[in-house]
Amino acid sequence: MIQLSLIGIGSGNPDHLTRQAMRAMNAADLILIPRKGEGKADLADLRREIAADVVTNPATRIAEFDLPVRDPAITDYRARVDAWHDAIAQIWADSIARDLGTTGRVALLVWGDPSLYDSTLRIAARLRPAPQIEVVPGITSIQALTAAHAIPLNEINGPVTITTGRRLRDEGFPPGVDTCVVMLDGECSFQHLPDQGVSIWWAGYAGMANQITESGPLAEAGPRIIARREAARAAHGWIMDIYLLRRA
Amino acid sequence: MIQLSLIGIGSGNPDHLTRQAMRAMNAADLILIPRKGEGKADLADLRREIAADVVTNPATRIAEFDLPVRDPAITDYRARVDAWHDAIAQIWADSIARDLGTTGRVALLVWGDPSLYDSTLRIAARLRPAPQIEVVPGITSIQALTAAHAIPLNEINGPVTITTGRRLRDEGFPPGVDTCVVMLDGECSFQHLPDQGVSIWWAGYAGMANQITESGPLAEAGPRIIARREAARAAHGWIMDIYLLRRA
Ligand SMILES: C[S@@+](CC[C@H](N)C(=O)[O-])C[C@H]1O[C@@H](n2cnc3c(N)ncnc32)[C@H](O)[C@@H]1O
Ligand SMILES: C[S@@+](CC[C@H](N)C(=O)[O-])C[C@H]1O[C@@H](n2cnc3c(N)ncnc32)[C@H](O)[C@@H]1O
Repeated sequence: MIQLSLIGIGSGNPDHLTRQAMRAMNAADLILIPRKGEGKADLADLRREIAADVVTNPATRIAEFDLPVRDPAITDYRARVDAWHDAIAQIWADSIARDLGTTGRVALLVWGDPSLYDSTLRIAARLRPAPQIEVVPGITSIQALTAAHAIPLNEINGPVTITTGRRLRDEGFPPGVDTCVVMLDGECSFQHLPDQGVSIWWAGYAGMANQITESGPLAEAGPRIIARREAARAAHGWIMDIYLLRRA
Repeated sequence: MIQLSLIGIGSGNPDHLTRQAMRAMNAADLILIPRKGEGKADLADLRREIAADVVTNPATRIAEFDLPVRDPAITDYRARVDAWHDAIAQIWADSIARDLGTTGRVALLVWGDPSLYDSTLRIAARLRPAPQIEVVPGITSIQALTAAHAIPLNEINGPVTITTGRRLRDEGFPPGVDTCVVMLDGECSFQHLPDQGVSIWWAGYAGMANQITESGPLAEAGPRIIARREAARAAHGWIMDIYLLRRA
């Protein structure tokens, strides 16, 4: 029987690691780490550095694998992602069979928390025979954002919606809430909102050494964020950013 | 100048502690811990045990304080909570003045993450002169819930609303989303929903040694949860629980 630990490692700050994550890494026989793919080489490096720093158990092996690329010949978005997830699951299965066999503990290091806008659980569900899955929670980028600004996520007893940049652009400010958090936004979708009566708290590289933040009324902070995001992305070659919007 | 660290300690599992939290505790000159109040003695004990376990810096002092009680003579809910927060801020200020003086690092250990349904940031904002506030993110009970069930929080690219039991009861399933997480629910408010087409994933004491879980279609799992919650609360004297609702 294969046991599979999906270990949340937090949002880029190696000190986001929990004691539970460090124990789970050292309890693993095999840790699978993506070598590259999908750009962002320094993010693959972070996983490697965390493993090198934390793993003290000499029996824990580390195997790197190359992430496949998505097949541009598949035009339907969902079908293309499904095929890509199938291919990743196959690579995991091959590595497990080669490096471990049919029994033992395998660990994967997941950015942030494994439950939040992440496909690792869905890829793991493709493995046959089904492994026993354990999830180790991690610090999400939402927590990294609110910590960066030292602000509450919610208003007193108020609801909060977490959504994506695409939905914000297509559907506007989510209904029924005064606070929303926007992730997976490659294009500053807040600029399509009516900009009166909304404030924004934004962070790039939240929690990381190169963290940058901006906040203020959307009408005034929005253009600042667009410029700062573009400059940071050009300087680093990549950016991950997240923001909270609150109605006045 | 006083520096105040609000340190997320995770949701009851001492292994939720991050390296950042452990470092911040050891960097503090003074850690303030509530002795009791608001019932739940074992939760105050958890903070004390965590501090005893983690603090190795001999210069770090620990001061306990009694939480005041809310004044039942104030009938307006918001005014009563405001007065209570004022009283807590005053106790912190007195302890800081007595045990530290006008300069140094003070830490407070906050359940889960300091941004999520927690009043510590709002109480800290009452301190004069204003301290410099640092927030250390923690594992939320939302992450503990999804880890307990090994489930994603969101559907693929889908939005999620976080809300309270009272709002679920008064306003029904939140608009515009197929997934919601319900916290601060003392009365199993899911029982007021039409129970067709909704599934529930529930956890009591999520992430803790005595964690209990239930899941399934609401019509069938709901009554099981109500019974199990009541029995657990009677056995332990208290319960903290949280759940995720998803439309089919
Ligand atoms: C594929 S999702 C993964 C989220 C992750 N599982 C978590 O718990 O935060 C990637 C998105 O998370 C956000 N994100 C992750 N890490 C971030 C960071 N350090 N700073 C800002 N945003 C971040 C960005 O919105 C990015 O588009
Ligand atoms: C005052 S809020 C504090 C939330 C905390 N700051 C967090 O990040 O999770 C208390 C609510 O959190 C939830 N909660 C906190 N810890 C929990 C646990 N270990 N298991 C289940 N629910 C928990 C419950 O819904 C409870 O009513």
